[in-house]
Formats: sequence, C-alpha cells, structure tokens
Amino acid sequence: MNLENYLKKKRGIIEKALNGYLPSVKTLPISLHQAMRYSVFAGGKRLRPILAMASFELVGGKGNAILPVASALELIHTYSLIHDDLPCMDDDDLRRGKPTLHKVFGDGMAVLAGDALHALAFELLSETKNPKLISEIAFEIGTYGMVGGQAADLQAEGKKVTISQVNFIHSHKTGSLMKASVRAGAILGGAGGEKLKVLTSYGEKFGLAFQIIDDILDATGKEEKLGKRTRKDQSRAKATYPKVLGVEKSKKIATRFLEEAKAELKIFSDDGEILKELADYMIERMD
Amino acid sequence: MNLENYLKKKRGIIEKALNGYLPSVKTLPISLHQAMRYSVFAGGKRLRPILAMASFELVGGKGNAILPVASALELIHTYSLIHDDLPCMDDDDLRRGKPTLHKVFGDGMAVLAGDALHALAFELLSETKNPKLISEIAFEIGTYGMVGGQAADLQAEGKKVTISQVNFIHSHKTGSLMKASVRAGAILGGAGGEKLKVLTSYGEKFGLAFQIIDDILDATGKEEKLGKRTRKDQSRAKATYPKVLGVEKSKKIATRFLEEAKAELKIFSDDGEILKELADYMIERMD
Repeated sequence: MNLENYLKKKRGIIEKALNGYLPSVKTLPISLHQAMRYSVFAGGKRLRPILAMASFELVGGKGNAILPVASALELIHTYSLIHDDLPCMDDDDLRRGKPTLHKVFGDGMAVLAGDALHALAFELLSETKNPKLISEIAFEIGTYGMVGGQAADLQAEGKKVTISQVNFIHSHKTGSLMKASVRAGAILGGAGGEKLKVLTSYGEKFGLAFQIIDDILDATGKEEKLGKRTRKDQSRAKATYPKVLGVEKSKKIATRFLEEAKAELKIFSDDGEILKELADYMIERMD
Repeated sequence: MNLENYLKKKRGIIEKALNGYLPSVKTLPISLHQAMRYSVFAGGKRLRPILAMASFELVGGKGNAILPVASALELIHTYSLIHDDLPCMDDDDLRRGKPTLHKVFGDGMAVLAGDALHALAFELLSETKNPKLISEIAFEIGTYGMVGGQAADLQAEGKKVTISQVNFIHSHKTGSLMKASVRAGAILGGAGGEKLKVLTSYGEKFGLAFQIIDDILDATGKEEKLGKRTRKDQSRAKATYPKVLGVEKSKKIATRFLEEAKAELKIFSDDGEILKELADYMIERMD
C-alpha cells in the first residue's frame, strides 16, 4: 500500500475518534473544552496512534479495539506538548504553524487542559479492560519514562553533556511513548513472545531516531516548513545529538537506528510493510 | 475508637505505603524524585486515603487491597495542589507551613512533578485490576470533575458569581475526588446497591462541606495555625460561599451538609462510626 494513502486514511479514522472522545464545547467548562480541542486539532501527524494501529494490524489485530488506545496515546502526546511549551518549560510560542495553547488561552488554562487530557487518556485506556497495559503505559509516561526524560532535558539546559546523557533524555522523553505505542498495538493485537520482542526493539530504535531527526531539523530546517520555531535548541543550549556530534554524524546515526529498526521486522511477511515504510519515510524527512 | 488515634494510625500506614511507591531519590532523575517527595511528604492530612480506608472497612473490606488506591488518591490530590499553587494559577508560596514546590524547585520542575505523580497514580490504580474503577477515577479527576472545577474556579476569579456557580466549582474541584475516594473504598470493599448509594451521597456532601469550611478558614483563620496564606480568596476575588453568603450563613450550610452526610450512614451499625466522627470533626474545625 502507498504510505501516503495509508497515513491519510488512518489520520481520518483517528481524528474522527478523537472528536468523539473529546468533551463538547457546548458543555461546561466551555473554555477548557475549547482549549483541549484547540491543541488536539492543531494538525498533528498522529504518529503515535499510527504506530499503534500499524503494529496492531501487523500482528493480526482486527476491528476497532485499538481506537481508544490509539486516541489515548495522542492525548498523552498532546498534553506533554502543551506543558512543554509553557514559559516555565521550553517557552514556545509556535507549534504546528499556530500560536501555542498558552498564548491563546493563558498559562493557567494550558496547565489544566494538559491535566484534563492526561486524565481523559486513562479513561480511554481503561476501555481495554487490560490493567497490565494501563500500568505499562502509566509507567512509560511517568518518571521512568516520558516525564523523567523531560526533567532530565530541563536540567541539562546550558550544561555540557555526554552522548550517554543525550541518549537518556531522548530514549525517555520521546522513545518511551513511541515504544509504548508500538507495544500497545502489538499487545492488543494478540502478539507475545518473539513478535512482541522485535516490535519493542523497533519502537525503541524508531523513537530514538525520531528525536535525533527532530533535533537535526531544529538545527537545519525552515520555520515555515516545520510550523514551529527553529534554532531553539541552540539558543537554549539544549542537549541534542547535533550539538554533541554535529549534524552530519547525527544523520548517519539516525539512519543507522532506522535501518536497525527495519531489520527487526524481517520475521514478518512483507518485512512489516507499513512500519518498514514509516522508517524509510523518517530517513527521507532528513533531506 | 478514638478518632485521633484512628487518624494517626491510618496516616502512618498510608505514609509508609507512599514511601514505598514513590521513586527513590537515588534513581534518575534525582531532582524530579526529590520534588515529588517534597510535596507528598510536606505533611498532608491524608484525608482522601482515610476516607477510602474508612469506607472500605465500613463495608467489610479486609487486608491491604485498598493501599494502592488510597495512595493513588493522595498522589492525585498532591499533583493538583502543586499545579494549583503555580504562579499562573493560584500563585501560592506557602503550603502546610513550607514553601510551595515551585518556590524550591522552580516552576518547570513543579509542572513535571505534578505530571509524574498523576501518571504514578494510574500505575497504582491499575493494581486493582478493576478497569471500571480506574475509568471512574479518571472521569472524576478530569474535565467533568476536579480539573473542570479548577478551570471554572480560575475563570470565576474577579467576577460576580451566583451560589449555583460556587456549587459547581466546589462540587467539581473538591467534591469529585472526595466522592471518588469514599466510593473507591466501598467498591473495593465489595459494596453495591444501597450501601454504595448512601456512601456516594456521604462523599458528595462531605466534599462540598469541606470546601466551604476551607474557604471559611481562609476568611477567618490564622496563617500560623493553617500553615498557608489566608485572606487569599478575598485578594484574588475568588468564588466562595463566604463571599456570596457571608461567614455565618456559610457555617450553617456547611454544618447542614455534614449533618445530612451523617444521616446517610444510619443503615450501618454504629452509624458508620469513623465516617460519622470525621463529619463531626469537620464541624468542630470551624470553631
């Protein structure tokens, strides 16, 4: 299948689901619901839900059981961006080509919109009736995962860092939720053993490469194309691969992680088609 | 049983459990774990865990199955206080007689510590292996519960409000989590039907009275006794019972809610001893 068509189709499905799950702007508190919807529908790539859906289908999952989880993963990602953009964190005023939430609704409402999305994600996750999966996702977005990575990122600002510290930040801040997304799809699709193991490894490598590429694009990309401010990492002295190893070497490492991720998929027929093409798509994104 | 002894004993149990559940300050990211522990061990009353434990025992629950949930409720309460104290929210610099978290660890780390406690709470809740209960708590702390109440509270600042708007704020901001605490204990203790119904009503009324009393104490109490700034509501023109109805009338209404809460318990032997005494204790707190 053509990847662009696949992504478009899945984005349509996930956005319809998100629209159904998010509270209506006709119910109280109206501003909070407007704020939640503003950020969720600001035009994300829906990469985490797509990773979950592709993984679910790859292992033979059928039907809509993946939708609440895929939506929850996007809500979690959105909440983390909202909090990360706050003035007391990364202080970003532009995201996906639009003013960030706190610029429009104020910092207090942005904190609360993030918190409400966080809670709603767990309401959706509980629809799986799989407490072990709920626990795993809570773990991966907590202090030993996503939030831990953000804290390490915040603390590393302006300091001299080693590549192993950058790896800690990336694998937690970004890698944990991506790994959890691929795993959630696989688990709900009924995979265990070897299949779950290789998909876990795919998710880890994909996540690490994603963050390296994100940092490369911050260092080399154009604002109008990316829809967000660039050269931020340099101005905030962020711990990134390009900072520690330079852009060219970082590109090589990201490519290697993605090639390794693809190689994990060889146990599947078609080499895991969509997940393989997603990795190639990430490599192309760097050019 | 003497209430003071009961509270002391339960606080000891819950604090030992919290200590075991919270990440060690010896693991990375150290500052984040220090921040989480700073707030959780700042000397709270542990009222929500105690409501859950008392309700659990009242309906015949035995053993430690309530501990992960009781701890999760306290973590949720703590996360909400941390975010609520931020400069962009209520802007409080003193809580339980100590500087608030963001004054010590910075605003960014305070946002993240709150987020990490929020995630950890759901990791603990998943230990119940009861997805319906997880879903209920997620709902009660989300936009139709706690966070929704905080958003309404934020928006009401400085505006003329009716008593029905104040009721909306109180019943959501404070009442939802207290009701959920009493219900979680009852559900895990095996209660359904009439018992669950009267305990739900007790939780709602207790929660509403608690917030009214909190606002009365803000208007009339002493900082050194309460361990937090007082007269804040007036200076921020908050929507409160004392503001709309005056202190004396507010006291009468809080007392009436607590008397009604107690009356709900008459189906239990000893009239639900501990929960009844807790309501009386709240009435005495106003004097």
